[in-house]
Amino acid sequence: MTATALETYDPRTFRARTFDDAAAHFRDGTDTPRAYLERCLETIVACEPVVQAFAALNEAGARAAADASTARWKEGRPLSAIDGLPIGIKDLLETRDMPTQMGCEAYRDHCPQRDNAAVWALRQAGAVLLGKTVTAELGGSQPGPTRNPFDLARTPGGSSSGSAAAVAARMLPAAIGTQVGGSIIRPAGFCGNVALKPTQGGINRGERQATSMSTHGVHAGCLEDMWQVAIEIARRAGGDRGCAGLFGPPTPPAAVQPTRLIVLETEGWTVLDDLSKAGFAQLLESLQGAGVTLLRRSAHPWIEALEKAIGNAGAICNAITGWENRWAMRNLVDEHPDGVSQRAKNTLARAEAMSPEDYRAALLARETAQLCHARLAPLADAVITLSCPGPAPLWPGDVPGAPLAPHPTGNAVFNYPSSMLFAPAVTMPLMSVSGMPVGVQLMGQQHDDARITGLARWLLGTVPPVVVR
Amino acid sequence: MTATALETYDPRTFRARTFDDAAAHFRDGTDTPRAYLERCLETIVACEPVVQAFAALNEAGARAAADASTARWKEGRPLSAIDGLPIGIKDLLETRDMPTQMGCEAYRDHCPQRDNAAVWALRQAGAVLLGKTVTAELGGSQPGPTRNPFDLARTPGGSSSGSAAAVAARMLPAAIGTQVGGSIIRPAGFCGNVALKPTQGGINRGERQATSMSTHGVHAGCLEDMWQVAIEIARRAGGDRGCAGLFGPPTPPAAVQPTRLIVLETEGWTVLDDLSKAGFAQLLESLQGAGVTLLRRSAHPWIEALEKAIGNAGAICNAITGWENRWAMRNLVDEHPDGVSQRAKNTLARAEAMSPEDYRAALLARETAQLCHARLAPLADAVITLSCPGPAPLWPGDVPGAPLAPHPTGNAVFNYPSSMLFAPAVTMPLMSVSGMPVGVQLMGQQHDDARITGLARWLLGTVPPVVVR
Repeated sequence: MTATALETYDPRTFRARTFDDAAAHFRDGTDTPRAYLERCLETIVACEPVVQAFAALNEAGARAAADASTARWKEGRPLSAIDGLPIGIKDLLETRDMPTQMGCEAYRDHCPQRDNAAVWALRQAGAVLLGKTVTAELGGSQPGPTRNPFDLARTPGGSSSGSAAAVAARMLPAAIGTQVGGSIIRPAGFCGNVALKPTQGGINRGERQATSMSTHGVHAGCLEDMWQVAIEIARRAGGDRGCAGLFGPPTPPAAVQPTRLIVLETEGWTVLDDLSKAGFAQLLESLQGAGVTLLRRSAHPWIEALEKAIGNAGAICNAITGWENRWAMRNLVDEHPDGVSQRAKNTLARAEAMSPEDYRAALLARETAQLCHARLAPLADAVITLSCPGPAPLWPGDVPGAPLAPHPTGNAVFNYPSSMLFAPAVTMPLMSVSGMPVGVQLMGQQHDDARITGLARWLLGTVPPVVVR
Repeated sequence: MTATALETYDPRTFRARTFDDAAAHFRDGTDTPRAYLERCLETIVACEPVVQAFAALNEAGARAAADASTARWKEGRPLSAIDGLPIGIKDLLETRDMPTQMGCEAYRDHCPQRDNAAVWALRQAGAVLLGKTVTAELGGSQPGPTRNPFDLARTPGGSSSGSAAAVAARMLPAAIGTQVGGSIIRPAGFCGNVALKPTQGGINRGERQATSMSTHGVHAGCLEDMWQVAIEIARRAGGDRGCAGLFGPPTPPAAVQPTRLIVLETEGWTVLDDLSKAGFAQLLESLQGAGVTLLRRSAHPWIEALEKAIGNAGAICNAITGWENRWAMRNLVDEHPDGVSQRAKNTLARAEAMSPEDYRAALLARETAQLCHARLAPLADAVITLSCPGPAPLWPGDVPGAPLAPHPTGNAVFNYPSSMLFAPAVTMPLMSVSGMPVGVQLMGQQHDDARITGLARWLLGTVPPVVVR
């Protein structure tokens, strides 16, 4: 067990595993991708038994890929800046050399022998596919076994539980996650990662295109790796069908100081604990002290209009996603009545009570909110809000006989807005509360992925992290 | 062999099998869904050996479903207006009780045990799922065994080959097809069907959502059945994720006389034979004689702008679809090197030569064309053009050693426009050339599906069909 895996979290001292600094030494020969991989594997040996971030590991395949990468760097011909980067793939994405079990009993030992488009692109870029990371069942809220590395009694968040936890425990420099409601930014916020949930359609989902709000994204230990992984995928596999794909430079965007930021409360404000509120207030004071103008809902009727339009974002998002998953879920439950959790069956029952008109109403609410958000473009550089409603909650498991807990992997209440707005979001590990990470996110206009990454770089380099005990 | 199946086609005398008129007799007890089904099966016994429209038949399941329907009608409680309607499902759509082989060797004996969302909706409405209809391989252009019922030496068109041929041979009153480029309207045009290719996203594709231009649609013997099948699906399963779904009345729209129609040439004009051109001119004269004003590209610069924007529609559509299918096809070819045709492999090779920027350029061309089309809304009620470039071509098969024929199932040159414009299209059997059907289509603005169905009803009821020998 390394100390890191069970340490109390302090954003001022925590050092995640990063790749871009190591790659410099691949060039001069003082380090190699194979040696880098072995360091990851050592941490995995130490931490994985308690963290349980992986649904599958392919050490042999990873070592072979790392050796090939080592040879390319030695020849001075790496395939990309992430050649040799060990990465985890959320277990919703198909991989030809590992099972794809989706955290669901019905898919136990499912081995589709195919690569998701993003997985294909990562291989083309030379990344080392080390394992499949645990997902909550089918990307929903039924938890997998993964624990939060900073407190094993707490959830790592979901549904990208394993991706967030593997990066937090320094087992990997980066991992692929996916988000429909809050499945990237929330676990990343609970685990002290940086992460990008791109503009809707930014990264080609390949076969994972069942719903209109799902996105592939990247969890990482630093913004440089986060951006590089995202852009290397998009340069090779583009975006979703019908979408232009991720826009931005081929290397990490430079830090840019924001002039104005909109502070968004979202539905999350009413459920936020006082310590996290106080910490966020302190962070915002630092920002103002650094010369950033903050605009709140009282400052402009258009900001108030957006707050109102996203005031029931959770209900809108859950209606849309439930309806869109309805037929696939009905088929799965009919085929495997015992292979799907009661939580997922309850979601299906709610979806099956909907009519096409209910769905159309939810779509209109989403489009209205997108219009309100687009209106704000000239007012500020981006939106700032929390990534999660305080630190990760305790997760002792459901109580037999009692109603199912509503949010076993935490509440996505701060994440529904960026999902329904199709907006890019980056979470930054800028706070800790009671020794646990609490992420802070920037949200941009559609296609502002590079811009908010540059703003996040400035914040991480300038604003002192806040520690609330 | 019934005479119908191999008769020369004459649109003035041909009578397709229809359902809405029969259903009237289910109410008074002089006919039953089971008896209706048996009449279809008799035709299938007679014609199927030479037409080869079906990839699978489920007579036992269909008879059980027809008996259940008969009981419901007897009790005066049919599930819908299409309760008891025997229907064919294009073999790209998953069905829980029949194989889904997609016309592709790699999927031989593939039995996914799942229902596509549209299939689920048809069952809910009481339709009788009689068989899977042959598709060209994976919805592309590698032909299946199906022949054109009006001349067995000719293609029925593709990729919805079996759906079009089964309706033409009176084996079924309706069948589900799908279109990405021209896969519904073209075979329906070659086979004398009516058919609806809905507004993009109008009918829930369920798992068949790999590309941004594919749609489910309906082939039928009459407009009443065509509309009823489409709306019964949409009322139960809605549209694609993110789409509002098909709009329109719960029963077939009434006939409406158009005031003005735009005559669109499309890329197809230059490859059209003289007989078909003359026939179409005669049809347009009849329309003018009936008081309809026709607007051509010379009449308005906006019409000219649309003609220019769709002047290379085929190349744009093929680039978009090739790119979007690229990862699924690469996986399939890697997994089953001998299970995919050379034609499909050639398409994959072209897609793999594309960059994300090539794809973005094609998307921009598509969006530009959509803008030009939307501008025309106030100018006319709809667009009129041919459904196919003349009668179905002969298809003797590829010649060993020679290059692969470019269009074995016919050229989609008149169909790419409605696909790339996301526009609804209805084809009408209003012409025959040399004893073969040549369809005429109406294309509307997005969500004008019901409107063009009403206009088509007027045309079919008013304009004398044209026979060119």
